[in-house]
Amino acid sequence: MNVLMNVRELIKAHGDIEREVYLDFENSGPVLPEVIEAMLPYLRERGYGNPTITHKPGWEAYEAIMEASEEIAGYIKASSFEELHFTHSDTEANNIALLGGFSANRKLGRRVVISKIEPLSILFPAQMMRKNGVEVVEVPVNNEGFVLENELLKAVDDETVIVSIGLVNHEIGTIQPIKELVEVVKERNPCTLFHTDASDAYGRIPFDVRELGVDMATLCSYKIQGPRDIGALYVREGVKIDRILEGPLGTESLWPGLENVPGIVGFQMASRLAFENLHEKARRLKGFRDMLITEILEKIPETILNGPRGDRRAPDNVNISFLRCEGEALTIELSLRGVYVSSGSACTRRLLQPSHVLLAIGRKYEEAHGSVLMKLSSKHGFEDIQYVLKVLPQAVGRLRSISPF
Amino acid sequence: MNVLMNVRELIKAHGDIEREVYLDFENSGPVLPEVIEAMLPYLRERGYGNPTITHKPGWEAYEAIMEASEEIAGYIKASSFEELHFTHSDTEANNIALLGGFSANRKLGRRVVISKIEPLSILFPAQMMRKNGVEVVEVPVNNEGFVLENELLKAVDDETVIVSIGLVNHEIGTIQPIKELVEVVKERNPCTLFHTDASDAYGRIPFDVRELGVDMATLCSYKIQGPRDIGALYVREGVKIDRILEGPLGTESLWPGLENVPGIVGFQMASRLAFENLHEKARRLKGFRDMLITEILEKIPETILNGPRGDRRAPDNVNISFLRCEGEALTIELSLRGVYVSSGSACTRRLLQPSHVLLAIGRKYEEAHGSVLMKLSSKHGFEDIQYVLKVLPQAVGRLRSISPF
Repeated sequence: MNVLMNVRELIKAHGDIEREVYLDFENSGPVLPEVIEAMLPYLRERGYGNPTITHKPGWEAYEAIMEASEEIAGYIKASSFEELHFTHSDTEANNIALLGGFSANRKLGRRVVISKIEPLSILFPAQMMRKNGVEVVEVPVNNEGFVLENELLKAVDDETVIVSIGLVNHEIGTIQPIKELVEVVKERNPCTLFHTDASDAYGRIPFDVRELGVDMATLCSYKIQGPRDIGALYVREGVKIDRILEGPLGTESLWPGLENVPGIVGFQMASRLAFENLHEKARRLKGFRDMLITEILEKIPETILNGPRGDRRAPDNVNISFLRCEGEALTIELSLRGVYVSSGSACTRRLLQPSHVLLAIGRKYEEAHGSVLMKLSSKHGFEDIQYVLKVLPQAVGRLRSISPF
Repeated sequence: MNVLMNVRELIKAHGDIEREVYLDFENSGPVLPEVIEAMLPYLRERGYGNPTITHKPGWEAYEAIMEASEEIAGYIKASSFEELHFTHSDTEANNIALLGGFSANRKLGRRVVISKIEPLSILFPAQMMRKNGVEVVEVPVNNEGFVLENELLKAVDDETVIVSIGLVNHEIGTIQPIKELVEVVKERNPCTLFHTDASDAYGRIPFDVRELGVDMATLCSYKIQGPRDIGALYVREGVKIDRILEGPLGTESLWPGLENVPGIVGFQMASRLAFENLHEKARRLKGFRDMLITEILEKIPETILNGPRGDRRAPDNVNISFLRCEGEALTIELSLRGVYVSSGSACTRRLLQPSHVLLAIGRKYEEAHGSVLMKLSSKHGFEDIQYVLKVLPQAVGRLRSISPF
């Protein structure tokens, strides 16, 4: 338990902090008070039954799940609540889309195509499939993270079962023109299924699954300040997917076991809050985002923006590389000042390599190691942004002053 | 949404109820107030970070997970907290034990042995494995649900990779002599891994994984009034298991994705409450259990107890068949009187057949269809038991009066 002792020392080292600004919505986040309030009754007052059992607490659970399905299906303009399948989280939804989608449609061929900048919950299952004999092609992107359409066209063949490309990139905020990419794929092979991980788009930018033309889309609750352990996979009517786990089936045909009713109700409320005045909130987020980007690039030397600017970038995403700064060290320096961010550094990610996304857009190792990812929430105010802009140069300055390079 | 309309009518039909007695802890249940109180701070005040990220809310999450692992590992006498792996629930733990356990050890052979009375989260993954070419043998049980040792000995061969037999049967409460069964298996084939689904034992009867000699054991939170969406798989040090899903890895090497910190903290508190005065609570539960069994069998004609009596039966389990009564109808009749139970009827379970457990112990179809499962909690009091004994004859009487048989 040595790690635990170090962790306790690190927590203690924080002492009095002037202000806390949480910017790590990529990896989790605090649940909104309204969401907790919506969940609480379902923990012990109502709907605490199993929705497949014929008694009052079971029927209440069933009702809650159906109402949430209908509301969430509406936000993405699905044709019916039956196209929405709750799963534990985005990781599970992405795994079913790839593994279960491939298994149910393997008569169509033996290839899966993803982009080089997909999240680990797509990249790693794809690598597992490759070990099991599936042909996995990773399509490159340009230096802003946009998928190269001619490379995509080359990658898709008569044997391609699934293409998976995220709607908004989780690290650098690139908003892919998914509708165009779906057309490229379907024109080449109309049987190929198109999946998009929309976890970083849902509740931040509006989208319509029918207009995009996707067959499957992953949604996630914790990225919009809903509870953990709940997400969903949209599956267009008629698309066949195999389960990857087995067990007792309730309301969810794709995932066995007891439904997480409080989580589903919380996801529903977090979605409702996110979609309220979505356009206005996105405009405000973009203002803060651009304020952070402009001031950091101007005031701190040797900094590089990762990902595109303007309307082609997610409104909440700021990703900047600080040269001569190790990312993990910077997250710690910032934490001690109450600012919580993540980094594409290999150390932070406990992987052998720094962010594969940053390497794919052409960043060098040292640039990727010094990257910091900040994701804004609509609850952030001007003072939060000013505080980040105050402490960031201090933290970077301190690290550079002790850097050997 | 016709089903939803019917469900709403059914909920409305309940009106004023004299007393509510929830007895369906087999399938879910209300979370204890102390558990909710323990979870609440982790939703938005502390530990709301991702435990792999180097900032305060992440370190707090890491600390919470490690402390919970250590405490829960202690309750089952594991050698180390590292042997405990959190999973979403018992369904996921059972799936990894079978699918991941087989995959990592497939060089040992091609057979899996289970009993005929395992839960669906064991039976269905085993059937999926059978479709994929694994030899699955189901060992029969006697009329009280005890595994036939000579049949088990015959089933285990040189090629048997895993044996999975539950410690306490989820439906009829049979407490298997697991230590003896492990000895039978290991004597025949020392390489065979022994898994036990201990979800129905954990927090109800004491057990020691080292003394039992099992290699893997499934634990579950919702069955002890903890939150849903959390469970654990104990894996003895040195036993190899493959992941069945892929994605970013945090503190849990067997399951990728963001850890459910509030759920883990809730599971820890539910465990603490369950293990407090465990022996005294078990004695009290047995009193209530035997009061229910004796009075029902005496006062209601044409009733049969399913499962053993006395110390060989789980202290919380009551399972009785009411002849000339359809189980689903009985759960509804009882619900309208505030008593919430489940049934082994095929209708309730939305399966083609009634409970495979009841059929395996020799019950006829009509006996299985009319079965009712009640699981007691240490929060139940004498008045609750008296209320059940008052309304049960009314409900059975009404159904029998309109029965065509």
